[in-house]
Amino acid sequence: MPKLRKRRGKCWIGFDLGGTKMLATVFDAEFHPLGTSRQKTKGLYGVKAVLGRIQQAIENALEDAHVKPSQIAGLGFGFPGSLDLTRGVVLSAPNLGWRNVTLKRWLDKHFSFPSLLVNDVDAGAYGEYRFGAGRGARCLVGVFPGTGIGGACIYDGRLIRGATTSAFEIGHLKVQSNGRLCGCGKFGCLETVASRLAIASEVAAAIYRGEAEVMRELAGTDLSSIKSAVLAAAIKKGDATVNAIVRNAARLLGSGVAAAVNLMAPDRVVLGGGLVEAMPKLYLEEVRRGMEPAALTPFLHDVRLVAAALGDDAGVLGAAALAAEEFGGGR
Amino acid sequence: MPKLRKRRGKCWIGFDLGGTKMLATVFDAEFHPLGTSRQKTKGLYGVKAVLGRIQQAIENALEDAHVKPSQIAGLGFGFPGSLDLTRGVVLSAPNLGWRNVTLKRWLDKHFSFPSLLVNDVDAGAYGEYRFGAGRGARCLVGVFPGTGIGGACIYDGRLIRGATTSAFEIGHLKVQSNGRLCGCGKFGCLETVASRLAIASEVAAAIYRGEAEVMRELAGTDLSSIKSAVLAAAIKKGDATVNAIVRNAARLLGSGVAAAVNLMAPDRVVLGGGLVEAMPKLYLEEVRRGMEPAALTPFLHDVRLVAAALGDDAGVLGAAALAAEEFGGGR
Repeated sequence: MPKLRKRRGKCWIGFDLGGTKMLATVFDAEFHPLGTSRQKTKGLYGVKAVLGRIQQAIENALEDAHVKPSQIAGLGFGFPGSLDLTRGVVLSAPNLGWRNVTLKRWLDKHFSFPSLLVNDVDAGAYGEYRFGAGRGARCLVGVFPGTGIGGACIYDGRLIRGATTSAFEIGHLKVQSNGRLCGCGKFGCLETVASRLAIASEVAAAIYRGEAEVMRELAGTDLSSIKSAVLAAAIKKGDATVNAIVRNAARLLGSGVAAAVNLMAPDRVVLGGGLVEAMPKLYLEEVRRGMEPAALTPFLHDVRLVAAALGDDAGVLGAAALAAEEFGGGR
Repeated sequence: MPKLRKRRGKCWIGFDLGGTKMLATVFDAEFHPLGTSRQKTKGLYGVKAVLGRIQQAIENALEDAHVKPSQIAGLGFGFPGSLDLTRGVVLSAPNLGWRNVTLKRWLDKHFSFPSLLVNDVDAGAYGEYRFGAGRGARCLVGVFPGTGIGGACIYDGRLIRGATTSAFEIGHLKVQSNGRLCGCGKFGCLETVASRLAIASEVAAAIYRGEAEVMRELAGTDLSSIKSAVLAAAIKKGDATVNAIVRNAARLLGSGVAAAVNLMAPDRVVLGGGLVEAMPKLYLEEVRRGMEPAALTPFLHDVRLVAAALGDDAGVLGAAALAAEEFGGGR
């Protein structure tokens, strides 16, 4: 008679590498978390040091989950930069200072399970689509204002992507003809008027001019201290200037969302990221207001605008689910 | 012993209804044309009269092809207006004055073969994708400036569409914040600055002011006589004002194309319609120029911009091929 064995099924790892922190989570076949590890990224110390911390995070998550590498069917790795998805190479990542890093080859060398590189925004949007605020959507547009503005689209269950790169670069829609220089090298991109960095630079200038008094107390004119939570706090304490700046940026974000709506006619738009998490009501209100003059009325009528539901877990969940789609056993 | 029978295979009908003319073509299983019929639309005479002419066109095309209705596996009907694709109902068609016409039900009642309603721009773009300038594209964006500006996208072989409607309304991307009223009810849409109608209204005003002397001779200030071929002729004869107006409109069209490129990262953009047919070189040049400041450099690098190749046949070919996809035997 054969021995009875406990059948655990395939496990998956989702990885989310950010500019300041990284998160690795081990999931079971139904994508319940079994164990997790969080580390600081410390990109300043160079590629090798970050790779070492990535290895550490994966090993710690496995240990936390009591899962052996042999039980892992695949790893999905969400990366914050431009990728050659076909070859698994990081082309560039301004926040980390990476250039032409053969990340997939490194992962293959250090781990026994297969891995899939994905764009971090795609991973987050896919996570919301499968497990969060985007469940059941036929066509989901994800918009994540942060340092830049990430965009993603899941159409009939599949990520819209380029031939070798990630697509749906909503942050680089040109919205101003006499606009500011963007990190991409062009002028007047949505990012230059509606990202957290754009808001921070506008708020800092207002503080310098002697306005935004509440905010001046909370943060000062250093952009790096003007974070989403602080902006939300200033608005709550009645800072009219910050309120006006953030609302204007959210409305402008809505005009970018409208362009995506006119093309894709989505049934769901998910707004996420730190700004939206800190001020969901303000964002839903003003983005909707910004969409109205710029999106076709029947398309506006058919789209539900919602805030992301999974917070930091969206990225690891989406990356793990995309790996499962790729390597089998995804649903 | 069974008799040998000549096997002809399935035949398909493609139909393209336009504001001024309609075209029906019968195709064999490999989409070679077997017979065709062209009629004037005469929308002024009302829905019933147009339906009668549609019936006539289909019957004439069958006769011309020497094909019996029983040999037809399906009909694809390209319609110039907003449709409920699920129910096969025309919601509205400003050019024809139609409203809530149950076109699919009418087709089902009058013909023995099944029919599929599709948006005319989608049909044209799909025709180019399958048989023309878009062959082999992974992601094709089709842009057709005419009275309005039609857009379509074929991604991994499938049309991007809404839940019940056609999508990819590139003509209604908002490109001006202080723009003109559009037919959709909003202000500053791409159509208001880059369609043939927008060009015609601008040229007519120039003529009225005493400029555009060549054009004044050729057309005068009546918008309905300012057609694509006449614009091309005026430019060829050295009308500097018309040249400047058309080039500016084509560049602005490029800024709309750039938005689609930033989202979809297509490998092919097909420009079609009367203006492009009349002035392909000018359009390819200026659209590319308009894209450059507004599209991400790596995406620009990966996209081929081409003129449509099939002319009027794109619509019937695409509609027939979409019917074949729907009813089986498409490839």
